[in-house]
Amino acid sequence: MPTGAAECVFCPGNEDKTPPEILASRGPGRSGWSLRVVPNKFPALRIEGELEQAGEGIFDWMSGVGAHEVVIETPEHDATLATLPADAVTDVLMAYRERVVDLKKDPRFEYILVFKNHGAAAGASLEHPHSQLIATPIIPIGVVEELTGSAEHYARKERCVWCDILRQERRSGTRMIVESHEFVALAPFAPRFPFETWILPARHRSAFEESSVEELRGLAHVLQTVLRALDATLDHPPFNYMLHTAPLREGPLDHFHWHLEIIPKLTLVAGFEWGSGFFINPVPPEDAAAALREVGGAGPS
Amino acid sequence: MPTGAAECVFCPGNEDKTPPEILASRGPGRSGWSLRVVPNKFPALRIEGELEQAGEGIFDWMSGVGAHEVVIETPEHDATLATLPADAVTDVLMAYRERVVDLKKDPRFEYILVFKNHGAAAGASLEHPHSQLIATPIIPIGVVEELTGSAEHYARKERCVWCDILRQERRSGTRMIVESHEFVALAPFAPRFPFETWILPARHRSAFEESSVEELRGLAHVLQTVLRALDATLDHPPFNYMLHTAPLREGPLDHFHWHLEIIPKLTLVAGFEWGSGFFINPVPPEDAAAALREVGGAGPS
Repeated sequence: MPTGAAECVFCPGNEDKTPPEILASRGPGRSGWSLRVVPNKFPALRIEGELEQAGEGIFDWMSGVGAHEVVIETPEHDATLATLPADAVTDVLMAYRERVVDLKKDPRFEYILVFKNHGAAAGASLEHPHSQLIATPIIPIGVVEELTGSAEHYARKERCVWCDILRQERRSGTRMIVESHEFVALAPFAPRFPFETWILPARHRSAFEESSVEELRGLAHVLQTVLRALDATLDHPPFNYMLHTAPLREGPLDHFHWHLEIIPKLTLVAGFEWGSGFFINPVPPEDAAAALREVGGAGPS
Repeated sequence: MPTGAAECVFCPGNEDKTPPEILASRGPGRSGWSLRVVPNKFPALRIEGELEQAGEGIFDWMSGVGAHEVVIETPEHDATLATLPADAVTDVLMAYRERVVDLKKDPRFEYILVFKNHGAAAGASLEHPHSQLIATPIIPIGVVEELTGSAEHYARKERCVWCDILRQERRSGTRMIVESHEFVALAPFAPRFPFETWILPARHRSAFEESSVEELRGLAHVLQTVLRALDATLDHPPFNYMLHTAPLREGPLDHFHWHLEIIPKLTLVAGFEWGSGFFINPVPPEDAAAALREVGGAGPS
């Protein structure tokens, strides 16, 4: 349940209601913090303990070792990533990078998923602006599937599939949403959800955490443009975003291109989707992209 | 939006508000119909046309050919599969079988997914009891993944993985929910969702549509026991169920075992799940099975 600012555990004054902070930004000339990272009080995986595995007949067990952190993006309860100053959004992205670089030192972890649930319908249990990181002791199956697909494309073509997509989409233009010197936002050819949007670095990069501050500043700009366009077009929809980046132990990958997937929560996933793995999407990506371009993503900026 | 009985397009008296019926049950001694199957008025795939495929640069297109039918399970607006007489539930399952057998004659179709969305939160746009069938011109990716997994298990072990699961779960008992001579309902070892329940034929069968009337009667009994136990334990939760059966053109498969997956809609699928393909489930399957056994699934009946 979203709670009001008065009893919000992420608001200034309630710092003692979260576990001790891992990271905080306290800029010069500011009285308090502008961003905090804290362990999740109700973690999906626990930081203590060794990774243990065992069989139970034909089944396999693994202990729930991992890290689950919350990035409190701003002290302002009613702000959003769309409304914050550009520098504050850059700070959020820098916090992601810093936490990934730090957690990568723990040899138990193979992957770090950075994601955001915005709005109750998208799974946010608190309305104060925040995102999350979960470090896992194995590479998640969804990531394995994406890597397998991109490795197959590379094996056939000797090209990164996302570089191919970028080249084709830029030429056609119909699914383009925003394009800057360093980042591209587009509607994917076969979106699972209405207004699904992907943001990719314009040049081939496999690991998010190797982004420079300049690149993160560029990402913040494109991300804000997209979120503002979604707010304007869909009246402030709930959404999730998920950072797709290379596994921690892989080194630079020629076949994988990191990207951010944004999915507004407008449709319900129901029996057909769960039974088939296919998604019914009533909004063609060309229409979604045109609508988003119209309100905010008009070409390079 | 669920609508009341007065304006419900599936209620008796409103037969002209659906497309012409494909199948209906009108039992002796009854004045009206007891079950109808009609084309979906807003189909995900269309029955007319040839299957066409084309490239668009690096992408692939396929025309949306298929069938999308609705099984109106009863004339009673306020009934549910849990509350209907056993014979009426058997009739619903027989309608599934009959439609699959009939649609299988259309050489354009490779798979038929039977599913049910119950409750608005589970994606039901009408509250009158109904389920759906979608025939697709390709085998859905989720089905391909399941078949690939079961074929790999068979290649290593020369045993069906679901037969293995049944043997192990019966011996341990902790995840068993209902067991009859012909069907078993159990909580899977790694459920994605709280109270996820699978119903499987006790003997190896790969194609649902080859079930005998006696078998469908047995399935109806176990399905009703499970749905009543879910209603009692979780206060009438919204749910989806999806029939997992072999593709239409495969013939009997040694490695695939048809089953019905029931997923109550209690948690939200959010950023972590979409980004990882993993699911956070706060209810251990042993606890869910114990709760369901207690209220309704107490052993063979």
